[in-house]
Amino acid sequence: MADSIPQVMDALGRRARSAARRLAMSGGGVRNAALHAASAELRSRSDEIIAANDVDMRAARERKLSAAMLDRLMLDQDRIEAMAAGLEAIAALPDPLGRVLAEWQRPNGLAIQRVAVPLGVIGIIYESRPNVTADAAGLCVKSGNAVILRGGSESFHSSRAIHACLVTGLQKAGLPAECVQMVPTTDRAAVGYLLSSMAQWVDVVVPRGGKNLIRRVQEEARVPVIGHLEGICHVYLHEAADAAMAAEIAVNAKMRRTGICGAAETLLVDRAAAGRLLPGVLSALSEAGCEIRGDSEVVAVYPGTRPASEDDWGTEYLDAIISVRVVDDIDAAIRHIGEYGSGHTECIVTDDDDAAEQFFRDVDSAILLHNASTQFADGGEFGMGAEIGIATGRIHARGPVGAEQLTSYKYVVRGSGQTRP
Amino acid sequence: MADSIPQVMDALGRRARSAARRLAMSGGGVRNAALHAASAELRSRSDEIIAANDVDMRAARERKLSAAMLDRLMLDQDRIEAMAAGLEAIAALPDPLGRVLAEWQRPNGLAIQRVAVPLGVIGIIYESRPNVTADAAGLCVKSGNAVILRGGSESFHSSRAIHACLVTGLQKAGLPAECVQMVPTTDRAAVGYLLSSMAQWVDVVVPRGGKNLIRRVQEEARVPVIGHLEGICHVYLHEAADAAMAAEIAVNAKMRRTGICGAAETLLVDRAAAGRLLPGVLSALSEAGCEIRGDSEVVAVYPGTRPASEDDWGTEYLDAIISVRVVDDIDAAIRHIGEYGSGHTECIVTDDDDAAEQFFRDVDSAILLHNASTQFADGGEFGMGAEIGIATGRIHARGPVGAEQLTSYKYVVRGSGQTRP
Repeated sequence: MADSIPQVMDALGRRARSAARRLAMSGGGVRNAALHAASAELRSRSDEIIAANDVDMRAARERKLSAAMLDRLMLDQDRIEAMAAGLEAIAALPDPLGRVLAEWQRPNGLAIQRVAVPLGVIGIIYESRPNVTADAAGLCVKSGNAVILRGGSESFHSSRAIHACLVTGLQKAGLPAECVQMVPTTDRAAVGYLLSSMAQWVDVVVPRGGKNLIRRVQEEARVPVIGHLEGICHVYLHEAADAAMAAEIAVNAKMRRTGICGAAETLLVDRAAAGRLLPGVLSALSEAGCEIRGDSEVVAVYPGTRPASEDDWGTEYLDAIISVRVVDDIDAAIRHIGEYGSGHTECIVTDDDDAAEQFFRDVDSAILLHNASTQFADGGEFGMGAEIGIATGRIHARGPVGAEQLTSYKYVVRGSGQTRP
Repeated sequence: MADSIPQVMDALGRRARSAARRLAMSGGGVRNAALHAASAELRSRSDEIIAANDVDMRAARERKLSAAMLDRLMLDQDRIEAMAAGLEAIAALPDPLGRVLAEWQRPNGLAIQRVAVPLGVIGIIYESRPNVTADAAGLCVKSGNAVILRGGSESFHSSRAIHACLVTGLQKAGLPAECVQMVPTTDRAAVGYLLSSMAQWVDVVVPRGGKNLIRRVQEEARVPVIGHLEGICHVYLHEAADAAMAAEIAVNAKMRRTGICGAAETLLVDRAAAGRLLPGVLSALSEAGCEIRGDSEVVAVYPGTRPASEDDWGTEYLDAIISVRVVDDIDAAIRHIGEYGSGHTECIVTDDDDAAEQFFRDVDSAILLHNASTQFADGGEFGMGAEIGIATGRIHARGPVGAEQLTSYKYVVRGSGQTRP
């Protein structure tokens, strides 16, 4: 490429800022029309997208990527249809812009409203899951934000083909193509420049991916970040847990899909109920194909278990492995989660509502569940239609980040000549 | 000091994190009791505080600080009473914690609630206004956050005396003294360490002060920042403005207090109404003691005006000076504000409601007012009881930052054994 990274990136940023202004003033109907048109493009150009994906897949096989990574990268007609349907689902959501979030009147007659507006320009940095290109761009367009997409290099051709459909959709709806831009290079320096030198053009960066990506973003970012840490999620079996429910939830939380951030990684169980609960729960997990790593008390109750090391408590396996620990009581469980958890999602299984309320009050994670699987940690399952990820930071948004969470607000104040005394 | 800056600061951070956990679990009544007790301490120890302030004032006079800075630094019985009353006003606000921000039920029976929780540990970096010590700490305690305060070095002794009252208040209510800590050194390296190396202990930094402070924070921060940029606020006189209201609002917006961020710095006026409006508005400003810097058309209508330079449009005077520009129409006014404004507060004066609605829609600032002075840009005037500042960033909070804005949330989900299909 003839232009330097700063030139390329600043040009992207400048165009994004300008497109964002037009998008912010557009009506919800126009933005939805763009999403529908992009959805239609994805369907009609699926062969083209699959051909682009083949280029990525061949390179990935040559580089001997893992089966899990190849699976994430792969696109077929079903997956393209899922992306297209996803854009339609986003279009069907209520307009997140212009919502009056609060309104009140002051004694002096001033009428104050807090009204939802777009964030502006969002930078999304993600790994080689081509579907994120459509999902993330769809949520940004829905919420009136221009977006700069930077996907993993392994999915570059696939993402470019999907991006072309999104651009056509925007143009068909009369919106600037620059509402959705892709970083046109796989050079990693572009990410560094986006994080460190584009505060003028980018209002917030959303990293979506593994620990190393998130760490890099947190170290280098000079722009606000909506952070998505790993999910070291816990299922805690309280002494008053129902044995059958405990087994069902543990197996679902761990094994339904092991590679998502809401998958459970650690099982805690009250000592008072370990003998009653663990044999059934652990054999159910084991039968489902899960490797169990337990502390010494677990090994005693369920012989043959591989011993867990200290490292296990802080590991996000993203695989069919679970660490299991016996705790003194609910306070010890809450302390364990505070020490080793990542603030993502935790579940308590109990028939004791008071224990559940204590867990809700004292565990400081984005999502807390009582008698339900941690795999519900998902914007779609929350009824938000779609999500860009699960935020584990504490500012702006926490938990599933959907279209609503991609907005800011402004105050509009209507007066009749008031001056301040 | 024997300990190094990192040792001192990490110890502060560790204690803050631990205090934050206890504070988060405390009841609103206990937190209010701490505020009332601190308020009483401020009153009963006012002589002590004034003596400490004398030390700061003597040093400041020796260093020949400006009259404006000396005025900000000075404490007397009235100002201490205002701080004490401020804490009581904060105590009287509704509890920002535990609010159910949203709740809904899913078709599978899961009952989801979004519940307000504290942010955690807040670092507040401010300049030499000792009253901020009480106001900021009061808002943090109210909202269940531990706080690390770093005020300007000129106000060190004053802030320390105020801090002692806050600590006594916490202790009397049975809360940890470490809920409110002061950086115990005026070494500037402590600020650098707080910004760059304490992400483990500090959840968000709130800078409150001038342009240089904010710039430093934005450059150095590796923790989330709730930003407070300068206030380059505009009053725009639309062609349908009432002449008397235009003069009243312009004078109040500029001259009521010139040193606050909501003070107007630039007056824009439609060309179609410049002849009708400007002579009256500018002589009212002039009579109020304001220096006027105008573009060539202003000079033509109001002879003797000092010409404005390009720099004037981007200057926050914080003084009795206003820049004045004639614009083609509302679109030109909106463009001018987009180019030179800081996204803080803008006012349109007009009798034309459609023009006001266009201004509300197309100007992208935290606070927009129709027929009301920009000096209403204030948490107290908004009915929030108190504020830590006016945020000009777009994420988390925008506009006045009060106790409610110092919260995050978590999701609590009540199930009956649901697993995800």
